[in-house]
Amino acid sequence: MHMSDATTTDLYEVTMAMSYLQEGMTGPATFSLFARRMPAERGFLVAAGLESALDHLSGLLVGPDDVEAFASVLHRAPRDLAPLLGLTFTGDVRAVPEGRIVLAGEPLLEVTAPLPEAQLVETYVLNQLNHQTAVAAKGARCVLAADGRPVVDFSLRRTHGTQAGFQAARVGAMAGFAGTSNVAAATALGIPAVGTMAHSYVEAFPTEEDAFRAFARAHPGPVTLLVDTYDTEEGVRTAARVLRELGPAVHAAGSAIRLDSGDLGALARRARFLLDDAGLPGVSITASGGLDEYAVEELVSSGAPIDTYAVGTRFGVSADAPYLDSAYKLVEYEGRPVMKLSSAKVTAPAPKQVFRGLGCADVIGLTDERPPAGAEPLLETVMRDGRRTGPRATLGECRDRLAADLDALPPAARRIRGPVAPHPAVSERLRDLTARVRHRTEAHAGAVSSPSPSE
Amino acid sequence: MHMSDATTTDLYEVTMAMSYLQEGMTGPATFSLFARRMPAERGFLVAAGLESALDHLSGLLVGPDDVEAFASVLHRAPRDLAPLLGLTFTGDVRAVPEGRIVLAGEPLLEVTAPLPEAQLVETYVLNQLNHQTAVAAKGARCVLAADGRPVVDFSLRRTHGTQAGFQAARVGAMAGFAGTSNVAAATALGIPAVGTMAHSYVEAFPTEEDAFRAFARAHPGPVTLLVDTYDTEEGVRTAARVLRELGPAVHAAGSAIRLDSGDLGALARRARFLLDDAGLPGVSITASGGLDEYAVEELVSSGAPIDTYAVGTRFGVSADAPYLDSAYKLVEYEGRPVMKLSSAKVTAPAPKQVFRGLGCADVIGLTDERPPAGAEPLLETVMRDGRRTGPRATLGECRDRLAADLDALPPAARRIRGPVAPHPAVSERLRDLTARVRHRTEAHAGAVSSPSPSE
Repeated sequence: MHMSDATTTDLYEVTMAMSYLQEGMTGPATFSLFARRMPAERGFLVAAGLESALDHLSGLLVGPDDVEAFASVLHRAPRDLAPLLGLTFTGDVRAVPEGRIVLAGEPLLEVTAPLPEAQLVETYVLNQLNHQTAVAAKGARCVLAADGRPVVDFSLRRTHGTQAGFQAARVGAMAGFAGTSNVAAATALGIPAVGTMAHSYVEAFPTEEDAFRAFARAHPGPVTLLVDTYDTEEGVRTAARVLRELGPAVHAAGSAIRLDSGDLGALARRARFLLDDAGLPGVSITASGGLDEYAVEELVSSGAPIDTYAVGTRFGVSADAPYLDSAYKLVEYEGRPVMKLSSAKVTAPAPKQVFRGLGCADVIGLTDERPPAGAEPLLETVMRDGRRTGPRATLGECRDRLAADLDALPPAARRIRGPVAPHPAVSERLRDLTARVRHRTEAHAGAVSSPSPSE
Repeated sequence: MHMSDATTTDLYEVTMAMSYLQEGMTGPATFSLFARRMPAERGFLVAAGLESALDHLSGLLVGPDDVEAFASVLHRAPRDLAPLLGLTFTGDVRAVPEGRIVLAGEPLLEVTAPLPEAQLVETYVLNQLNHQTAVAAKGARCVLAADGRPVVDFSLRRTHGTQAGFQAARVGAMAGFAGTSNVAAATALGIPAVGTMAHSYVEAFPTEEDAFRAFARAHPGPVTLLVDTYDTEEGVRTAARVLRELGPAVHAAGSAIRLDSGDLGALARRARFLLDDAGLPGVSITASGGLDEYAVEELVSSGAPIDTYAVGTRFGVSADAPYLDSAYKLVEYEGRPVMKLSSAKVTAPAPKQVFRGLGCADVIGLTDERPPAGAEPLLETVMRDGRRTGPRATLGECRDRLAADLDALPPAARRIRGPVAPHPAVSERLRDLTARVRHRTEAHAGAVSSPSPSE
C-alpha cells in the first residue's frame, strides 16, 4: 500500500493543524529546531539531513487519500478534515548548511510559515535532521581518529532499515569517508564503492588459496583478500603467495589484505612484516570488525600499520549516541515571541541567528542583530515561499565546509575521549528578550501580553 | 533517482556472486542468521523483520539498470556483469515466526539457495532482521515494565528515518502497544492512532484555557490536554475546569491529561488528586518525555497514578542496544558443513533447528533431529523455491505469539534491570558435528575434507 509522505507524521500535528484552521489561526509562526544538549562524548555536531527535509517540504501536498487516512484514524468523516485538503508548504526556511559544525542550543533550522503548515511538518523535519546530524558527527569523529588514513562505510547491514543505510553512506561521505560498501548509495551519490569478499566466500572453496585465486580470476586488477577465516597468519602467507604470482600489476596497484577479527593491532604488525618480507610493500592493510572512533584512535596511536579503517555498525547507528535530544519549538507567532516554561525544558523565544566567531566561539542572537566583529551568520535562507532558493549543495561542498569548520575547532572539542564542546554565548539582546518574555509569561500564568522582538 | 532494491546491498555480495557464477559454484548453500550474543540488559530478543525480508526476496530481480550500476561502481563493462542479469531468489527460507522469543546463538532465519543468490541477499536480510528484532525486544520490555497499563509509540520524530519509524510502530504493535502516533503506520497496519497537542499549540493561543477550549471545539468527544506548558499544577486545574464544562460525554468517556516533563510521579499524584477533587475520576493521566522501560518500571513500582505510558525516542532507536551483534554465516555448501575458526567468531556448522522446551529451555540441534520430549521446533519453512509458503501473519498473531512466549519465560529473563537470558543448550549431534568439522578444518588449515551432517 502506497502512503503519501503527508501521513508520515504524528497524529497530533494533524489534530493541531485542524484546530488552527478552524480557529482562523493561520498567521505566520516561526519554529526553531535545535539540540537541547550535547550527547556525552561529543565535542561538536555536524548539520545534516537538510536536503531530505527540504525535499519533503517542497513535495508536501495533502491529497484526498491523505484526508481519508486522517479521517479514518480519527474516526471522523472525511469532510470534517476537508480544510486540510490541498495543503502545501508555502513558508520560508532558514538553516545551517549541511556539513557545518553546530553546538547544543544553536538552531539547525527555523521554519516560518502559516501556523498549520509550520506545525504539520514538525515530525518529518525532526526525523530527518535528528539522526543524520547524529550519524554525521559520529562519522566526523571516525575521520578525526584515523588521522589522515582513509575511513570507509560498511554499515548497511546494521542500520535501522535501508533508508537509514543510504543516509549513513551519504553523511559518511560528507564527513570525509573515502568510500562505502552500499552500492545504491555509491551509484546515486557518486561515492566510491568498496568491498570484496566475506568469510563465507573463503569457506565455499576447498581451500583458502583456491578462494583467493578464484577471486582474482573474476576481478582482474587490484584485489582485497580477507585473511582471517581460519588461521590469520597462514592466511596472510597464502595471500602473499597468490598476490606475488599475480604480479605487480595487481600487488603494487592498490591490492590489500583485510583483517576482520582478533587483536587487529598485533595481527596488522605481523601481516605487515610478512607482506614486506614477501616483497609486497605495496599491499596495504584494511581493518574492520566492530570499529568505531575509540578503537580507531587506539590502533592509530599504538602505531598499528593499518592503512584503511572500515567502520560499520557503530558508525551507522551512532551507537553511543543514537539520537539527539532535539526540539522543534514555537518561538514566535504573529510577531509575538513565545516560550515554554515547564521544568527543565525552558526555551528562548524569537527567531534566531548563530554568529560564528573564530574557533567556534559562537553567539546565539536575534535575526536582525549585527554580527559581532569577525563573526559570520550560520543560518542561511534555503527556502522562500515553499521553494528552494538555490541549488542543492554537492557532497563535496558539504565535505569542504566540515573540513574547514573542524580545522577551526578547539582541540578539546576534537578529542575522541572526553571532548569538551564549546558553549555558545547568548547575545545581550536575546538575553534581555528572554528575561522579558519569561517574566510576562510567568506573571500572566499563560496569559502573555507580548513584547515585540525589537522592543 | 530510483534505485531498484537489488543494489541495496554491500558491494562484496556482488563481487562474490560474480565469482561464484564464473566458477560454476551454483550448488545449494545454507546461510544461518543469528545474534552472536545478547546485548547487555536483555533477557530475550523478539524475532521481527521477517515479513519485509521476505518481501525483498520475493521481489528481487537484477535488471539491466542494476547491472549497469554494478558495472559502474566496479569500473567494469556492463557485459562483464551480464551473468547477474535476471537473477532472482529461487531458494528456501526457514525462519522463526515474527513475535517469537529468540536467544543468542539461535538461528532467526536460514536461507538455502544456489550460492550466488544466497550470498547476494545477505546485506538486505541482515538489515531488516537486525534492527527490527532489537526494537521489538525493547518494545516488549516497555510493555512488561508497564505491567498491564497501555503503552503507546511516539517515536517517529527520532527514529533513523521514516522507514525505521514505520517499522518501530509495527514492532511496537507486535510487542503489545495500544497505539502509535504515526499516521502512516496506523493507517497501513490498522493500529490505533494516538496523540493530541504539543506545547506549541498551547503557546499559540493567548491563554492555556483558550487553547484547551479551541481544541475541544475542533475535536468533539474525548480529548487529551497537555498541561505542562507553563505551570503544571495550574495547567491541571485549567484542564479540569474545561473538561467539567464539556460534560461527562467528554470527561467520563476517555479524556485524559498529558504530563511531558518534570517529576512525572509527583506531578501525576498531584494531578490525580486535583482531578478527583474536581469530580473527574474518569479523566486519565498519560505520561511521556524521555521514557523507556527503566523509567516506566520506576514509575509503576512507585505507585504513580499514570494510566498510559508513551515511549518515544529510546524505544524507537532501542537506545541502550541500538544494534545486535548478528551474523549471516555460511553453514553448509553442497552438503558439506563449514565453519569459521578465527578468534572469537567461531560458528557452528550445518543447518539447524531450535527446539523450544518449557520455559524457553531451548536446544539448538540439527534440522533432522527428533525434538526432545515436549519441545517444539521454532523455525518453520516460510519460503520454498522463492515463494512464500503461506499467508502473512497478522500483527495480532505475532502479538499473541509473543504474549505466550513471555508468559513462559523465566522471571529472571523478564526482569527490566539485570535480566538473565536463558542459555540454549546444544544437542549432542550438533556438538559432535561441530567438533569433527572443527578438527578437520584446523587439521587441514583451510583444506577441509568434510563429514556429512548425518555422519
